Amino acid sequence: MSEFDFDLFVIGGGSGGVRAARIAATHGAKVGLAEEYRYGGTCVIRGCVPKKLFVYASRFSEEFEDAEGFGWHVGERSFSWRQLIAAKDKEITRLEGIYRRNLDNTGVTCFDSRAEFVDDHTLRLTATGETVTAKYILVATGGAANLDPDVPGIEHAITSNEAFHLEELPESVMVVGGGYIAVEFAGIFNGLGVKTQLMYRRDMILNGFDMDLREAVQEEVAKKGVEIITDDVPVRIVRRPDGRLDVTSRQGRTCVVDQIMYAIGRRPNTEGLGTDAAGIILKPNGAIAVDAASRTNVEHIYAVGDVTDRVALTPVAIREGHAVADTLFGNNPWTVDHSLIATAVFSQPELGTVGLTQDQALELTPNLDIYKAKFRPMKHTLSGRDEKMLMKVIVNADDDRVLGVHLMGPDAGELAQVLGICLQMGATKADFDRTVAVHPTAAEELVTMRAPTERLRGA
Amino acid sequence: MSEFDFDLFVIGGGSGGVRAARIAATHGAKVGLAEEYRYGGTCVIRGCVPKKLFVYASRFSEEFEDAEGFGWHVGERSFSWRQLIAAKDKEITRLEGIYRRNLDNTGVTCFDSRAEFVDDHTLRLTATGETVTAKYILVATGGAANLDPDVPGIEHAITSNEAFHLEELPESVMVVGGGYIAVEFAGIFNGLGVKTQLMYRRDMILNGFDMDLREAVQEEVAKKGVEIITDDVPVRIVRRPDGRLDVTSRQGRTCVVDQIMYAIGRRPNTEGLGTDAAGIILKPNGAIAVDAASRTNVEHIYAVGDVTDRVALTPVAIREGHAVADTLFGNNPWTVDHSLIATAVFSQPELGTVGLTQDQALELTPNLDIYKAKFRPMKHTLSGRDEKMLMKVIVNADDDRVLGVHLMGPDAGELAQVLGICLQMGATKADFDRTVAVHPTAAEELVTMRAPTERLRGA
Repeated sequence: MSEFDFDLFVIGGGSGGVRAARIAATHGAKVGLAEEYRYGGTCVIRGCVPKKLFVYASRFSEEFEDAEGFGWHVGERSFSWRQLIAAKDKEITRLEGIYRRNLDNTGVTCFDSRAEFVDDHTLRLTATGETVTAKYILVATGGAANLDPDVPGIEHAITSNEAFHLEELPESVMVVGGGYIAVEFAGIFNGLGVKTQLMYRRDMILNGFDMDLREAVQEEVAKKGVEIITDDVPVRIVRRPDGRLDVTSRQGRTCVVDQIMYAIGRRPNTEGLGTDAAGIILKPNGAIAVDAASRTNVEHIYAVGDVTDRVALTPVAIREGHAVADTLFGNNPWTVDHSLIATAVFSQPELGTVGLTQDQALELTPNLDIYKAKFRPMKHTLSGRDEKMLMKVIVNADDDRVLGVHLMGPDAGELAQVLGICLQMGATKADFDRTVAVHPTAAEELVTMRAPTERLRGA
Repeated sequence: MSEFDFDLFVIGGGSGGVRAARIAATHGAKVGLAEEYRYGGTCVIRGCVPKKLFVYASRFSEEFEDAEGFGWHVGERSFSWRQLIAAKDKEITRLEGIYRRNLDNTGVTCFDSRAEFVDDHTLRLTATGETVTAKYILVATGGAANLDPDVPGIEHAITSNEAFHLEELPESVMVVGGGYIAVEFAGIFNGLGVKTQLMYRRDMILNGFDMDLREAVQEEVAKKGVEIITDDVPVRIVRRPDGRLDVTSRQGRTCVVDQIMYAIGRRPNTEGLGTDAAGIILKPNGAIAVDAASRTNVEHIYAVGDVTDRVALTPVAIREGHAVADTLFGNNPWTVDHSLIATAVFSQPELGTVGLTQDQALELTPNLDIYKAKFRPMKHTLSGRDEKMLMKVIVNADDDRVLGVHLMGPDAGELAQVLGICLQMGATKADFDRTVAVHPTAAEELVTMRAPTERLRGA
């Protein structure tokens, strides 16, 4: 009989925690898990999944327009936000049930409670006040959306959390921020017919992405009707008597909107967690510091996912959780390689990216061959929509390796996933060129780029 | 001064011929090209391109339905076939113009005429009766759709050629055949609201494709409303007084339809070409026999594309044409590898496939790991549409190599293109597994298949 109640106790029922709990239980460990809200975490409850469902919903307005170019006449259409919310909530509840059942089926003991450290082996379950002990503890508490506390009236602002549950679709919205969440929500609101402004403190949206991709998507998003305001931030929000919001910006703009949604970054959920009581060292931003094996400074305490502020993506958290479980209980120690992770942004148009940006690639070598194609997707030859697709391939001219691929357009995220396999295998441009095209597809452009559009060479 | 009018004369202005002509001219050769109809060949004029435009058009009917699940109410819609045809014709004319201009710009001399061999260096241009001579001749005359001449009343049937130009959209159609063209057109007609039957002499559509894929797509196509009649063929077609057609089948069925479209295979265009006069050896089916370098038995006469009956796909013809030009005039001899060619079928749902089918893989090794996932695409969790996506990965259990990937569902063709790069690089299942998922995408299923659904092992 162990001296602890559990071999592993997991704090947080999101993607990383649930995967770790299930795999550890499968390896024979006695596992407990505490979740204070709903199972599935940010991804399922208030992130990837409901977001993508909203994206699907918002894309139909363009489909109706595009159909006209193909001989369709589409009558009056209307949109019910409440119907979408209800359908989305039903699906989220279904998915949450699957998460919960999968935990139950593998024998994980679930506690519907917040858990806080009492000491490095003991947790208090706040719902009941009881304490549990565990040999190993995994922190997988995720992150939360930030507001800007310095802005007077910030209490009138929402984040993506509330956007998923608005009673009514606003007639106008200001999205504050320029990262992927801001850009995705601007596209959603705009597609659903909301007058949408996006205000961002930098000069171009999607900081950190490849510059050509950023330029291209900023242009297309604006073409679709989102008003993009750069180099500016709100400094005051005032609720008007009619319920609308007066937003004043640093540059002196005044905007009247029905809702203002902040998407200016996320913070790790460590507040009140009792990390001090356990002796866990945090990074300056409140994230839990871990090594490559996701281990904290306390050797039997681990942390995975957004709370560690490494790569805040669901599949990464899942891998990290899986690796911890295999390492501790599966006699199979392994670590997650964070170096080459393909990602999608479900902006409109969609983005897919894998590997290095051009700026990052230039730090590796001054000798790059850049292949860039910007073209009208085939569908839009008949729809008449003025929307371009961008494909950019960055090749190391020294050894022909493909260092990065950056895509904007239909299915860019799907393509990025498979390109992730190619780049992870060390694909060269010659490997792309050897591959016979599939016609007519958009992706065939990737294997038929014959001459670089740009040759960069060191002095 | 050469003893010939041209260094290279190309018969046929389709994908393969045009590429060969342009590249040869770029290498400095004096090139002539004869096209009797329109530039662009089957692909542009009566194949891939107009077909895919029709597929786009036909998919909107499901979009309108799917939108309802996302909170949209879509009013009455109607479809104008004539508008679609006009829009499609305009686009085809635009593309044809590009083909023509690209030839002009590289200095190729174009003849709007049929060309027939007088002898192995001489061609007669039938439009004017003049003859031209060339040092090298490239036959790129393509193929044409077959009818079944043994069926009384076959003169009432159309092929895909005429389907692109029907005056009116029929209320009902019978598509005869079960290959990809038949299945694609059945989907187009069905999506546009035509009562569609597909009659095929075999027991399952898409002979030659992976059996799981065939089963899955046959099921989905039927679910969408296409009546699939297997193991049967028409034996008599009679035009009724009201203009409709009575079709009697070998199994004794009688069907009344507005149109009957045959898609039972294609034949190489060599009739009347004068191949005898040039001494060119044909295969029994009329195709021109060539070696790996696309050279006929006559050492200065080459043939590429569908007329050679190798792999009848546009990108293959283009590569073959390119290789001939580089070999003859670019001092860069190379040949096309026909062994690993990814393909798409724009059926509904779409198919993408690369590498070996399970049956083909079993000829290589009895030891296979099969990974199969069948799931509802995320969009259909809210649309409520009962449509599944299929992903099947076939792995050589001896060495972990991925031998084949077969996909059914949204964007399957796009995914197949990039998977073509992976398989061509010799991807193993471990390479797939090492790749971090992109969430939420359909393609992430490819990199998260943890356990084989089936393990096949030799005795």
